[in-house]
Amino acid sequence: MKCRVCKGPAVVDVRRHNAAFCRDHFLHHCEEQARRAIDSHDMFTAGERVLVAVSGGKDSLALWEILVRLGYDADGLYLGLGIGNYSDESGKYARAYAGRLGRHLVEVDLTAEYGYGIPEAAEATHRSPCGSCGLSKRHLFNAAAIEYGYDVVATGHNLDDEAAVLLGNVLRWDAGYLGRQYPVLPATPGFARKVKPLVRLGERETAAYCVLRGIDYQVEECPMAAGNRHLGYKETLNALEDRSPGTKAAFLFGFLERGHERFAVDAEVERDELAECSVCGSPTPGGVCAFCRLRAKVGAIELGPGGAPTSEPVAFVAKPRHESR
Amino acid sequence: MKCRVCKGPAVVDVRRHNAAFCRDHFLHHCEEQARRAIDSHDMFTAGERVLVAVSGGKDSLALWEILVRLGYDADGLYLGLGIGNYSDESGKYARAYAGRLGRHLVEVDLTAEYGYGIPEAAEATHRSPCGSCGLSKRHLFNAAAIEYGYDVVATGHNLDDEAAVLLGNVLRWDAGYLGRQYPVLPATPGFARKVKPLVRLGERETAAYCVLRGIDYQVEECPMAAGNRHLGYKETLNALEDRSPGTKAAFLFGFLERGHERFAVDAEVERDELAECSVCGSPTPGGVCAFCRLRAKVGAIELGPGGAPTSEPVAFVAKPRHESR
Repeated sequence: MKCRVCKGPAVVDVRRHNAAFCRDHFLHHCEEQARRAIDSHDMFTAGERVLVAVSGGKDSLALWEILVRLGYDADGLYLGLGIGNYSDESGKYARAYAGRLGRHLVEVDLTAEYGYGIPEAAEATHRSPCGSCGLSKRHLFNAAAIEYGYDVVATGHNLDDEAAVLLGNVLRWDAGYLGRQYPVLPATPGFARKVKPLVRLGERETAAYCVLRGIDYQVEECPMAAGNRHLGYKETLNALEDRSPGTKAAFLFGFLERGHERFAVDAEVERDELAECSVCGSPTPGGVCAFCRLRAKVGAIELGPGGAPTSEPVAFVAKPRHESR
Repeated sequence: MKCRVCKGPAVVDVRRHNAAFCRDHFLHHCEEQARRAIDSHDMFTAGERVLVAVSGGKDSLALWEILVRLGYDADGLYLGLGIGNYSDESGKYARAYAGRLGRHLVEVDLTAEYGYGIPEAAEATHRSPCGSCGLSKRHLFNAAAIEYGYDVVATGHNLDDEAAVLLGNVLRWDAGYLGRQYPVLPATPGFARKVKPLVRLGERETAAYCVLRGIDYQVEECPMAAGNRHLGYKETLNALEDRSPGTKAAFLFGFLERGHERFAVDAEVERDELAECSVCGSPTPGGVCAFCRLRAKVGAIELGPGGAPTSEPVAFVAKPRHESR
């Protein structure tokens, strides 16, 4: 196996590109794929402030590293989810990496600042923990970006993630979700811009990137996610990819080129109908937003009749307790 | 397990409907699903002549039975594909059933009338036999309907078939194919109307229908189809359905309700660009149609320079040699 670029010994192969790379050219390949995604989708420019949602896993740490290497002004945001040891360990990886990179890490702790962790949310809602986790993250990533004046929130969603989400959306033909699934979502009132610079890299590539750059990351999968639907869709796509390399990329990029635009209007209609949450003020289809309803369910806040808050509205986002450099 | 309708002992369960049925109510369920598909999509009316594409398998024989029971004027069309014993056996099932039903069976033999069978086509094209088979069927079903004055061609594609085709189309986001995937395709110049009345029934249901009606059908799968992509997509969807019953139906009907229309314009553009095949006169994107090109590849006809026929154009469709009642 020889490097496609220099013909030296290769250390990683990328089947869907029918290519292999030596260490240096693989690292360049990954950074180049991120650069292409950022430029082709006008995700952000050199002067803008980027907040990277950092879980401590391979994707988010690779993203942070790549953005800093590409010369962007990128800080991190770590959200403590209250998932026992898993969260404790994840936080350590995020903090250690922030120190190594010499960049700010904003920290928000769900339990200390919002009165619940993901296990409590799952118990209170009698539903998959992943649902509560996703909505908490979306709310707090956005709130932190607005609160601290970042231009854009960047997440480490890779090709495998996005293809699996797309499969779920397309199996239900959820027009609103299909209309919102895009590597860049522009800022709208109450929402910061959101971008996914790693959509052109598979998760095998982000893992290899971290290993070859010597980045220590949380290798464990979240214990609460085991057996969830998203992982099932990933397995499904992996089986299709094994039979026919390139299937995932053709699926995702075919959608971005020939599918997405046809659903964009559905997302616009939904966005136009948003109003302010009567508790926290963030945009919501009506009444109390999903985040505040979740907080009420776990007993962290009380809602009056008709969803009105029983006390003064809480701050849009609580001040983070910890900041490390 | 009790029948949903009469509470008597059930013989078949249909997981996606969370229902079970006794023999009589299951047969009624199947016929009712076909009736709903026919009516809701305006497939055909009582006075029209329907040509059922009959392979000798469970789906096509169930379809023919149901259409006759629902009072439609439905004849059969059997296409001999030249696949050795498999074709010989399939033809026997089709003829025996035509006799039992007391309806016409139009027969077309690919080898005798068009100079090749599917094995020869696969060898000559160095491609999957299923590609040659599909294009031969599409061409000859359509040609026979036009030649013999049928208003519509009905095929036995069931929910499993259509969902698997949809998965393939969506994995490539093939806009033209997505625009043409619908239970009814109206007649256009050179094309008969095409309908799929069994889209609301899974293949487990059509098999049970045949068993309970005492219809003998070809149980073997086509030996040339083993391991093809379509069967792979069926397996993929079966695995998703096992985890979450109703996934296939939600996928297909969600597309028909919220997806298809967004791609219809792509199919219209492709249709508007069709011209007459310079050999046989059937509609084609340009020059010689895929069917005549296939015949040339297997050596059944000769094409001159630039695809012009070297002799007088052959008849649009050869006269069938056999008709049985």
